[in-house]
Amino acid sequence: MKKRKNVEHRKNRFASKTGLAPGTLKYVGASKDFDVYIDQFLFTEELYEEKLKIDLKDILADKSDAPVRWINITGIHQTEFIEHVGKIFGIHPLVLEDILHAEQRPKLEDFDSYLYFVLKMIHTDPETKIVDSEQVSILLFENTVITFQEHPKDVFDPIRERIRKGKTKLRKSGADYLMYSILDAIVDNYFIALEIMGEDLEEVESNLISSHQRVELADLHAYKRELIFLRKSIWPLREVINFLTKEDFNLIKPETSVYMRDVYDHCVHVIDTLETYRDLTSGLMDLYLSSMSNKMNQVMKTLTIIATIFIPLTFIVGVYGMNFDYMPELHYHNAYLVTWIVMLTIALFMLWHFKRKKWF
Amino acid sequence: MKKRKNVEHRKNRFASKTGLAPGTLKYVGASKDFDVYIDQFLFTEELYEEKLKIDLKDILADKSDAPVRWINITGIHQTEFIEHVGKIFGIHPLVLEDILHAEQRPKLEDFDSYLYFVLKMIHTDPETKIVDSEQVSILLFENTVITFQEHPKDVFDPIRERIRKGKTKLRKSGADYLMYSILDAIVDNYFIALEIMGEDLEEVESNLISSHQRVELADLHAYKRELIFLRKSIWPLREVINFLTKEDFNLIKPETSVYMRDVYDHCVHVIDTLETYRDLTSGLMDLYLSSMSNKMNQVMKTLTIIATIFIPLTFIVGVYGMNFDYMPELHYHNAYLVTWIVMLTIALFMLWHFKRKKWF
Amino acid sequence: MKKRKNVEHRKNRFASKTGLAPGTLKYVGASKDFDVYIDQFLFTEELYEEKLKIDLKDILADKSDAPVRWINITGIHQTEFIEHVGKIFGIHPLVLEDILHAEQRPKLEDFDSYLYFVLKMIHTDPETKIVDSEQVSILLFENTVITFQEHPKDVFDPIRERIRKGKTKLRKSGADYLMYSILDAIVDNYFIALEIMGEDLEEVESNLISSHQRVELADLHAYKRELIFLRKSIWPLREVINFLTKEDFNLIKPETSVYMRDVYDHCVHVIDTLETYRDLTSGLMDLYLSSMSNKMNQVMKTLTIIATIFIPLTFIVGVYGMNFDYMPELHYHNAYLVTWIVMLTIALFMLWHFKRKKWF
Amino acid sequence: MKKRKNVEHRKNRFASKTGLAPGTLKYVGASKDFDVYIDQFLFTEELYEEKLKIDLKDILADKSDAPVRWINITGIHQTEFIEHVGKIFGIHPLVLEDILHAEQRPKLEDFDSYLYFVLKMIHTDPETKIVDSEQVSILLFENTVITFQEHPKDVFDPIRERIRKGKTKLRKSGADYLMYSILDAIVDNYFIALEIMGEDLEEVESNLISSHQRVELADLHAYKRELIFLRKSIWPLREVINFLTKEDFNLIKPETSVYMRDVYDHCVHVIDTLETYRDLTSGLMDLYLSSMSNKMNQVMKTLTIIATIFIPLTFIVGVYGMNFDYMPELHYHNAYLVTWIVMLTIALFMLWHFKRKKWF
Amino acid sequence: MKKRKNVEHRKNRFASKTGLAPGTLKYVGASKDFDVYIDQFLFTEELYEEKLKIDLKDILADKSDAPVRWINITGIHQTEFIEHVGKIFGIHPLVLEDILHAEQRPKLEDFDSYLYFVLKMIHTDPETKIVDSEQVSILLFENTVITFQEHPKDVFDPIRERIRKGKTKLRKSGADYLMYSILDAIVDNYFIALEIMGEDLEEVESNLISSHQRVELADLHAYKRELIFLRKSIWPLREVINFLTKEDFNLIKPETSVYMRDVYDHCVHVIDTLETYRDLTSGLMDLYLSSMSNKMNQVMKTLTIIATIFIPLTFIVGVYGMNFDYMPELHYHNAYLVTWIVMLTIALFMLWHFKRKKWF
Repeated sequence: MKKRKNVEHRKNRFASKTGLAPGTLKYVGASKDFDVYIDQFLFTEELYEEKLKIDLKDILADKSDAPVRWINITGIHQTEFIEHVGKIFGIHPLVLEDILHAEQRPKLEDFDSYLYFVLKMIHTDPETKIVDSEQVSILLFENTVITFQEHPKDVFDPIRERIRKGKTKLRKSGADYLMYSILDAIVDNYFIALEIMGEDLEEVESNLISSHQRVELADLHAYKRELIFLRKSIWPLREVINFLTKEDFNLIKPETSVYMRDVYDHCVHVIDTLETYRDLTSGLMDLYLSSMSNKMNQVMKTLTIIATIFIPLTFIVGVYGMNFDYMPELHYHNAYLVTWIVMLTIALFMLWHFKRKKWF
Repeated sequence: MKKRKNVEHRKNRFASKTGLAPGTLKYVGASKDFDVYIDQFLFTEELYEEKLKIDLKDILADKSDAPVRWINITGIHQTEFIEHVGKIFGIHPLVLEDILHAEQRPKLEDFDSYLYFVLKMIHTDPETKIVDSEQVSILLFENTVITFQEHPKDVFDPIRERIRKGKTKLRKSGADYLMYSILDAIVDNYFIALEIMGEDLEEVESNLISSHQRVELADLHAYKRELIFLRKSIWPLREVINFLTKEDFNLIKPETSVYMRDVYDHCVHVIDTLETYRDLTSGLMDLYLSSMSNKMNQVMKTLTIIATIFIPLTFIVGVYGMNFDYMPELHYHNAYLVTWIVMLTIALFMLWHFKRKKWF
Repeated sequence: MKKRKNVEHRKNRFASKTGLAPGTLKYVGASKDFDVYIDQFLFTEELYEEKLKIDLKDILADKSDAPVRWINITGIHQTEFIEHVGKIFGIHPLVLEDILHAEQRPKLEDFDSYLYFVLKMIHTDPETKIVDSEQVSILLFENTVITFQEHPKDVFDPIRERIRKGKTKLRKSGADYLMYSILDAIVDNYFIALEIMGEDLEEVESNLISSHQRVELADLHAYKRELIFLRKSIWPLREVINFLTKEDFNLIKPETSVYMRDVYDHCVHVIDTLETYRDLTSGLMDLYLSSMSNKMNQVMKTLTIIATIFIPLTFIVGVYGMNFDYMPELHYHNAYLVTWIVMLTIALFMLWHFKRKKWF
Repeated sequence: MKKRKNVEHRKNRFASKTGLAPGTLKYVGASKDFDVYIDQFLFTEELYEEKLKIDLKDILADKSDAPVRWINITGIHQTEFIEHVGKIFGIHPLVLEDILHAEQRPKLEDFDSYLYFVLKMIHTDPETKIVDSEQVSILLFENTVITFQEHPKDVFDPIRERIRKGKTKLRKSGADYLMYSILDAIVDNYFIALEIMGEDLEEVESNLISSHQRVELADLHAYKRELIFLRKSIWPLREVINFLTKEDFNLIKPETSVYMRDVYDHCVHVIDTLETYRDLTSGLMDLYLSSMSNKMNQVMKTLTIIATIFIPLTFIVGVYGMNFDYMPELHYHNAYLVTWIVMLTIALFMLWHFKRKKWF
Repeated sequence: MKKRKNVEHRKNRFASKTGLAPGTLKYVGASKDFDVYIDQFLFTEELYEEKLKIDLKDILADKSDAPVRWINITGIHQTEFIEHVGKIFGIHPLVLEDILHAEQRPKLEDFDSYLYFVLKMIHTDPETKIVDSEQVSILLFENTVITFQEHPKDVFDPIRERIRKGKTKLRKSGADYLMYSILDAIVDNYFIALEIMGEDLEEVESNLISSHQRVELADLHAYKRELIFLRKSIWPLREVINFLTKEDFNLIKPETSVYMRDVYDHCVHVIDTLETYRDLTSGLMDLYLSSMSNKMNQVMKTLTIIATIFIPLTFIVGVYGMNFDYMPELHYHNAYLVTWIVMLTIALFMLWHFKRKKWF
């Protein structure tokens, strides 16, 4: 098992915000060193327009007829920026506050004219296999989807590709289907993270059983810890998506709801797998502890065998090392030989005894 | 306990599919080396027709009047094939995607004109007792049941037999009863797998208690692991079948619903047994650990008895091995004898002491 | 704690039945060596008629006006017999199948004209205290109760007595009250089994705490196992009886429902007690393991005290057993005495040290 | 922690009653040596009458106009007595049976003209701090409350006092408020029992952490056991009181229901505290086991330090105790001194090594 | 990890109150040495008035037109004071009783004309990082919010600041928004307490894994204990706030309910974090125990290596220290050298053996 970077190890920075009036916009998260930028995708079934790193005021000015618009904002660390977006689209101050706060619990809120989601995006580097987690906020309007992400890295490339290609269902469908595609991409990436964890788990398991390679409990603990944090992200996500499939939202067309159910099924599958890994991990804990116990047993048996054989013999040789004037055995001619025979007999008897007890 | 092959040990291969558009058909599962083939059963109460390994276009052309048709498709690894079937019967792309994906969580979906199930089929080889798991997708139409399975091996032979025999309830009933028979056969095979596991469990238990034969914790772990995976298949299946008995589906006739309830009861019974085995397994874990502790205790007692008897004696003989010029005892005539008597007394006292403490 | 026979230890024999058409009648259970027989009780408030070991056809022919009839069938291992009964009373094939299958999970099914129960009857031998479990199926018709039991032994004697006595509420009431009496007798016998287990538990507990008598973990495990199996019978029974009190069944008169609630309360009480025993048992497990740990500690302390006192002393006497030409101490007149004094001082210091550490 | 008497340790005596017809009155409980007696309180806002140890027939004859009557019956071991009361007030036979059965699970039953409660009263002796548990049955009629208790000891003195004092809310209110006062007094006494347990818990905790005083696992077990039994009484009581606040009973006036909610809150608070104590107790279990492990470690380290220092030294002195003819070192003048220097060096090195490893 | 003061360690003082009539006002809590005082804030969007330490009768006399009034009462230990407030505002006696009782479980009660909350306020000293807990009672009337707190220390300073500043949403909104601000401030302070605990947890974790610094189980226990108590406060708080968002209260305006949902989300987030810490803490427990086991193993291995190497060698040198007349080896010229070679060979073989077994 590789030494793993913890998915979510950064400190809560909630404290820095306590005491501010609700709706006060303040970025809560790790400091960033890049400028917030906006990518915009406009598309209908026939047309498609991609504008990268556009200006805030371009969003406002945009009067194109494209029925679907995806505004993807990368970086949430510039408060004025988010505030401006909020003004353009009429977003509730509490929502803006949540967008800026990178430690949200996944949730869904329905404000008649738009839906607001916040969830964790898991991104696995295909080469280094390092797992990163960042917060994604999604706003679904009538024809527009706005996504806010913390870092430039994301899992949306396949969606962008599908928009570019044309003739895909995505190009033919509305903003709700776009939002579904985004959710789907995010949930699918949980699977990838879990698969890598599953492979690690099998490795640890086979190491423990074969005993060839040493397993550190600290590794198992790190593993368990990662599961706990993944779990913390995925359980509320499940609730959110379940709510999405159960309730009737006027922003989500009925034909999209079958797709929502599909994302929900994936989500439940992720949770099932996660819980299975938890069960397996606690089983490995037992295996680990019992293998340690086994080793201790082995050590004790070695000590006991050697000590119980030689301690009596050492006593015997001690006896004939005494300097009493009158010790008749010392003068018998065969005494030395007989002593050896007696000692060998004792040693062999003990070996036989331990053998019978299956100590070795 | 035989070394057991894990029921579901193959890796998730979800990653290979991530990023594709929803509804994109791609086989996800172990590679197969046989051609997908179709068996078709057509029957009414009086007539019966069995066509093995028929062609895809024959399905389409079939205009027979038989009210019930069972199309059993073996192999899901040829995408075009499944796609073709999907076109003929008007199956939703997401369903086709799920059929091709061999790592589904059991579920049920209702598309007015058809019902879609996916579940795990457990197949136990009657001779080698090896348990295999594969995914089965079932589509229930008005008069047609389509089943998709991964491998040629299945648990449907008794159903085929009953179709062939005639005069059975199966021949007299509709497609919904056929579907029930399939579900029933699948759930019953879970019992067989559990029975074999139950026998193994009793063996492990009696070995642990008698202590005659050594039990490896790794075996117990493998056992626990198998239970975890069986559980992962059967719990969602229960939900599915429960849903089936609670809801009103127009494709399922009221007289069939009592049979559905019966399958549900079996399913709950399987889960009860499984949970009982889990409880028992964790009890065996405790037994195992305490038996290890017992052995350690035994080893320590042996060491302690030998060491505490001989260490003081060795000290005594050491005393009279000293070379001081003035050691009056050395010159007494009975000193050697007295020393022996003292040492024997000490040894016997200690033996009595350990005996009283029930150390042996 | 007596070595206890496991309440439900027989193997599932489900496998032998898998593959048969649903509704196929086949006995599943231990083989029996007696003939199935029928006892019939007919009674009104005034009249009472008891026919033991009657013929099947006598049931059919019976045209007596007695409003309440109790047909008690002992033995379910003769398929034709049960089939015949099924035909006479118009019982659904699936019910007959369940009656013949001695490994059912407790359940209740409502077929308009009759109710079908299946549950486990616990029978404790008043002398040997051995607990037996068998399956009882109960069919409640308008005026008739049919019970099927596996063995001649049962817990219904008090009911028979009350029928014979006359002037009892049982004689004045209908078939639903008779069924209630049967359920009540069965649930009450769970209490008796639990009481015996409770006494065993107290014995184990006091043995563990006093440490006078040795307790085997295997016994505790057997105990736990028995609780697991009792639990498996009683939890679904609770559900069944709860359903009975909640729903409106036209076969059960309103005035009987208060009695049903009473049985339900008993059932919940049984479960409470059982769960309490489970908690206590796991507490005893901890006590056991810690008492083992304590003993190990005791053994280690003994070894350590003896070894740490004598090993240094043995070293000292070894020093003066060396044969160097120039060892001035050897020739001092008081050397031997001084050596003894030094050694005693060391030994006493160590004893004081261990005493202070409360090692003995 | 004082040696504690178990709150509920008496055996189930259910067995003695099994087989009797439902509604058969039979006392089930510990045998008593006092006569059942009746105290009656009659009061309106202005008037108040207290009759102690009155006769059964006086109850019947009482025609006073006092709107509220509290009949407090002490002792349930005289069947005829209870039967008589039952006849006077028209109580259902099953209720009488429950009143006589001192091992009831707390429950509430609604018989249009009266409500029936049964619950456990916890009574803590203010001096000896011994906790007793007894069963209380409460019947609420239009203007009358009848309470049945097992022993003369009870927790109702403050209520009696408030009746006597006059001008209290109790005197101004109806029978439902009286019943509330009784429930409130009973639930409050659970708090007292818990407080005493909480103090014990803190004592055990500080003993474990300071290690000054020895803690016995058996005490912790007794503690846990007591919590289990308290829990068994209070959980169903919560259900009962919750039911009381949720449902609409015509015997309970709306203005009393806010008081009922208050009792319910207390009840939930008791449960919260109890569960907290359970969590803390299991934490103490861990502390205990780890402190035992720590002690074992200490013992082992002592042994290891002494043994690993002196065993090699004893070997060295053994070498020069050999009697070979040709051992050149024996004849060097400084050999003895050098040997001592070597041995001291080895000993000091080892001590330094163990110090570095923080073994002491 | 600093030695932490337990958040809630004071004893339940419920006992002192048992037996009093419900609604009897009696302070239950730690004794206080300051006088209860009242601060009053009156504000509209334009105006703002702050009166500190005002007199009781001033409250009554106050006839200002300010639509929102916040009466903050510090100290609940003077019964007459609270009684007086109760009379002025017409508060139910049971509510007054609860306000005076500093050991309440968080709850919400709706009395048409006002809402009553009670909850625990967590206050973290920004410098010493010591966490204090006190009870806060909140009464929401049409235009007035009354808060009762135990100590002068509180978490409301940011709210006071916002009232003073003007132009804030708080100044523009009604009493319901003020109450929301208070709840929000309280819940936010749970985050701060948790953050500090999270930092401690990481410290303990890294100490355990690096093994550089010793971790005491007692510290882990204190940590766990603190989590248990925080949990006891926050879980019922969640219920209360959930109830607040679900139900329709006429005192809470619809536009405020979105803010209530926000507090609820924070509350759930606190609970999530708390549960995560619990999981992590139990993981650390395992780490701790296994690290202790590891150390024991280390000690045992050291002992075993030294003892198994030197015990046989000591036996050998013992052999040649015997004083038999006839021991031929003693007289061989190379015997001494050969003995050394043999002994070195044995020692090296053993070292190699232990090396191969990875004992060091």
